[in-house]
Amino acid sequence: MLRATVTGRIWSTKRLKEVPAGSILEVVVDGSSTRLLAFDPLGCGEGESVIVATGSVAAAWFPGEAPPIDALIIGSIDEAASARTGK
Amino acid sequence: MLRATVTGRIWSTKRLKEVPAGSILEVVVDGSSTRLLAFDPLGCGEGESVIVATGSVAAAWFPGEAPPIDALIIGSIDEAASARTGK
Amino acid sequence: MLRATVTGRIWSTKRLKEVPAGSILEVVVDGSSTRLLAFDPLGCGEGESVIVATGSVAAAWFPGEAPPIDALIIGSIDEAASARTGK
Amino acid sequence: MLRATVTGRIWSTKRLKEVPAGSILEVVVDGSSTRLLAFDPLGCGEGESVIVATGSVAAAWFPGEAPPIDALIIGSIDEAASARTGK
Amino acid sequence: MLRATVTGRIWSTKRLKEVPAGSILEVVVDGSSTRLLAFDPLGCGEGESVIVATGSVAAAWFPGEAPPIDALIIGSIDEAASARTGK
Repeated sequence: MLRATVTGRIWSTKRLKEVPAGSILEVVVDGSSTRLLAFDPLGCGEGESVIVATGSVAAAWFPGEAPPIDALIIGSIDEAASARTGK
Repeated sequence: MLRATVTGRIWSTKRLKEVPAGSILEVVVDGSSTRLLAFDPLGCGEGESVIVATGSVAAAWFPGEAPPIDALIIGSIDEAASARTGK
Repeated sequence: MLRATVTGRIWSTKRLKEVPAGSILEVVVDGSSTRLLAFDPLGCGEGESVIVATGSVAAAWFPGEAPPIDALIIGSIDEAASARTGK
Repeated sequence: MLRATVTGRIWSTKRLKEVPAGSILEVVVDGSSTRLLAFDPLGCGEGESVIVATGSVAAAWFPGEAPPIDALIIGSIDEAASARTGK
Repeated sequence: MLRATVTGRIWSTKRLKEVPAGSILEVVVDGSSTRLLAFDPLGCGEGESVIVATGSVAAAWFPGEAPPIDALIIGSIDEAASARTGK
């Protein structure tokens, strides 16, 4: 997975009907300039530090037929606790 | 997914018969120099800002037997609304 | 998919028996220095501009049991026509 | 797979319920600045040199329904023995 | 697939039981500094030029349940013959 920071939200009216309703957030991978768009089932906000899973495992998370989604926010990082381990 | 901008269209007469009829667009990933070719079911045009899903989830979107397609435009980005969130 | 140019052919006598008979070409991804080896069912030649699909969708294209092939040339690009769209 | 070094542990209270209980470690890929988050079933510690598998094979390792996990520590590297082969 | 050169062997005593018995080699992708660990069913040696398949197609090659292996050496490159095509 990738550790990333939420930088914004994307709106898309013209889209495939198989794209699930819900938020698509823009994130920047920490320590890089890589930007990704990830589906967010958790209600994350700008500046939040998140865990992003990519590839077919993201699509497989959705119930029923797998949608064309290749990046999923699977968690929000507890900053204070995580910092304690040295990173 | 990747946020990208459409830069052109690719024509291919000599191709596998399993490649679906339809547009294959060239896109550049925003904030990078990475160029991809993506199948476009939405009728996007040059300069349009789009959401691209990659990998096996792109192929799985097609009805019936999955074609050898690894990149799919799943939506067009509403620029004005998306800008409002800070990007 | 990736737009790439064929630069050579690879020969491999010592290989897994599950690797299909046929050409494995070396290609360079346009606009980068990335080199890939891709299976070529289309009979492409050196200098030809091609469309390469990567990942499990490449293996799934083969009839029967999917071979350990992760890159497949799915088409050759019509240079003149494609140039007309602005790239 | 990737050879990487463990640099810390991530804590995430707000997460999808499908994320398995257990450690998610932060690792840095050796010889690069790439950072990944990987699920650790082996109890590895900071500074340990590990083998990381990525993509859908990581999710498929879990018993039952595949979770949205795309990176898995599959082994710890025996440093002394591995060094003997020249790396 | 990737063209790479074998640079060493990895030993791992502490590993998941689902990792198949056999060699895991370290390779460097030609023309880059990217290092990968790949399962080797062919008995390749240091300095050998090899073809590496990555992703789920590597795991699918194994008989029975797919192991958490995402890189597989599928062939050794015949240097002399391959050079003749211009690379």
